[in-house]
Amino acid sequence: MSDQVRIVEVGPRDGLQNEKTPVSVEDRIAFVKALVGAGLHTVEVGSFVSPKAIPKMMGSDQVFLGVRDLPGEFHVLVPNEKGYEGAKAVGAKVIAVFASASEGFSRANINCSVAESIERFKPVIERARADGIRVRGYVSCVLGCPYDGDVAPQAVVDVSKTLFDLGCYEVSLGDTIGVGTPSKARQMLRAVAGSVPMPKLAMHFHDTYGQALANLYAGMEEGCRVVDSAAGGLGGCPYAPGATGNVGTEDVVYMLEGMGIATGVDMNKLIAATNTISALIGRPPVSRVASALNAKTR
Amino acid sequence: MSDQVRIVEVGPRDGLQNEKTPVSVEDRIAFVKALVGAGLHTVEVGSFVSPKAIPKMMGSDQVFLGVRDLPGEFHVLVPNEKGYEGAKAVGAKVIAVFASASEGFSRANINCSVAESIERFKPVIERARADGIRVRGYVSCVLGCPYDGDVAPQAVVDVSKTLFDLGCYEVSLGDTIGVGTPSKARQMLRAVAGSVPMPKLAMHFHDTYGQALANLYAGMEEGCRVVDSAAGGLGGCPYAPGATGNVGTEDVVYMLEGMGIATGVDMNKLIAATNTISALIGRPPVSRVASALNAKTR
Repeated sequence: MSDQVRIVEVGPRDGLQNEKTPVSVEDRIAFVKALVGAGLHTVEVGSFVSPKAIPKMMGSDQVFLGVRDLPGEFHVLVPNEKGYEGAKAVGAKVIAVFASASEGFSRANINCSVAESIERFKPVIERARADGIRVRGYVSCVLGCPYDGDVAPQAVVDVSKTLFDLGCYEVSLGDTIGVGTPSKARQMLRAVAGSVPMPKLAMHFHDTYGQALANLYAGMEEGCRVVDSAAGGLGGCPYAPGATGNVGTEDVVYMLEGMGIATGVDMNKLIAATNTISALIGRPPVSRVASALNAKTR
Repeated sequence: MSDQVRIVEVGPRDGLQNEKTPVSVEDRIAFVKALVGAGLHTVEVGSFVSPKAIPKMMGSDQVFLGVRDLPGEFHVLVPNEKGYEGAKAVGAKVIAVFASASEGFSRANINCSVAESIERFKPVIERARADGIRVRGYVSCVLGCPYDGDVAPQAVVDVSKTLFDLGCYEVSLGDTIGVGTPSKARQMLRAVAGSVPMPKLAMHFHDTYGQALANLYAGMEEGCRVVDSAAGGLGGCPYAPGATGNVGTEDVVYMLEGMGIATGVDMNKLIAATNTISALIGRPPVSRVASALNAKTR
C-alpha cells in the first residue's frame, strides 16, 4: 500500500459551514492560503448557495477570487443553476454537486426526493461540461442516514452510477453522520466499484464515532485512493450537536505518512493553519494529532 | 471477521493511573461494578505498587476485595515480589507484569535495562505459577518509544517470547505512546506471531494520534482477537500531556458491533459508567462515541 493517495481538503467549506462561529471572507482566504502553503493542493473553498440558507458561506465568490491564482485546485459547491452561474462568473474550474443515498436525508436536507435532486443538477452538469468545468459528485449518507437508519449499498451504487454517467469525474462517498465501521465501508465501496471504476471514487468519512481512520484504512485496502478530510477535524455533526465532524486532515496525514505514503503535507504548517482557524472559531481542534502535537509543544 | 473478540477493560488501572485527579477506593469499586454491569467481564482493577511511586493506585487491595466476588475476571498489576505478596494476600487470580520493548523506556520508567526488568519479575512469575495464579505480560513501546524513537519488531518479538516462555498466558502488546499506524501494527503483530501463537497476543493501543481503531482493525485482519481498552478513553499520555490515552472502550465496542462482532456490552450502561467517572475526575470523556452519544441525548 505504498502508492499515492490524493487528499481533498474540505475544511474551508464542509468544515466551516458546520461550525457555530462564522468566519470572515478575509480569514477564510488566509485559511486557504495557509492550507495550500502546508502542501494541500486540492481545497474546497466555498459554496455558491443562498446566503439566507447558509450564511456562513456568504462571500464564497470573494473567497474563490482571493485564492484562485494560488498553485492548487479549488472546488466550490454548487446546488443549482443560479449557483453555477456564480461559480462560472468567478472562473471556477471544478464544481461539486451533491445527492443523497437516502430519501429521508434528501427530503430533510434539500426538500425533494433523490430523483428530483438529480433532475435539478442535471442541467448544472450539462452546462459545466459544455463550459469545460469539471464536476465532482457528492453522495451523502452512504453508510447510514439520520432519518432512515441503515442505507442499502445498492442505493449508494445507483446514485453514484447516475452521477458518474452524467459526467462527474469523481464521486465522493460521504458517511455524513460517521456511523460506518470498517466492514460496512468495504462492502459499500466494493458494491459501488462494481458500477463506477474505483479510481473515480473518493471517501468522505466523518469521525462522529471515531471510526473514520479505520474506515479509510479498510477502504484503502479495497483499493480506494482519494480521501476527503478537514484541517483540525473542522465541522460538527448537525445530528449530534457537539460531536466531531469531518475526519481531521492531520490524522489522515499521520496515518498515511506512517504507512510510507508520502502526502507532501508539512504537518507543522498544517497545524499552524488549524490553530489559527480554531482560535477564530473559538474552540480547540478536535483532530487527535493536532491536539497531541499542540500538547507536546505547549 | 465475525468471530469473537475479548475486551480487557483497563480503565480502572491504566486509565485512572494516568489521570490528574485521584479517585477514592469507593469510587473505583463503584466504577468497576458499573463496568461489570455494562457487560465487561475482564477488568484490570489496580496496581500493587508503592503508593509513594503511584499514589493514585493506593488502596488497590481494597478495590480488589471490593470487586472480587463480582462475576468477572479481575487483574492487578504487579511490579515485583512485594507487590506479588499483596496481590496473593487478597486472592488475586490473575496478575500482570510488564516489560518494555525499548531500553530507553525501561531505563526511564523502571530504572533498569530490559534484561534486568525480566530478571526482576522472573521470581514473580515462578511463584505465581506455583500458586496457580495466571500471569499476563505487558510489553510497552511496541510501535515506538518516547526516548528511542522507532522500535524494531525484533525487539518486541524477543521480549514477548521471553514473557511467553516464562509462562505468561497472554502477552499484551502496548503502543504506549500511540504512534503506530496500521501497516506498522500489522508488521509488528506478524513478527511476534512468528514466536508467540496469535491467540496468545493482545493489542493494547493508545489513541494519542487517533490511530488506535485503525491499528486494531489492521491487527484483527492479521488475526489478533484480544483488545485492551479503557472506558471513556481514560488515561492521558505522560509524554504528551493533554493528549488522549487508551483507546476508548466505547469506540472499540462501536466498531466491533458495527462489524457484526457481538461484545455483550450494553453501550448505554457503559457510557453511564464513563460519565460517572468523568465527573469525578473533572473532565468529559475523550471517547468519540461517548461524546457523540452524550451530545445526542443532551
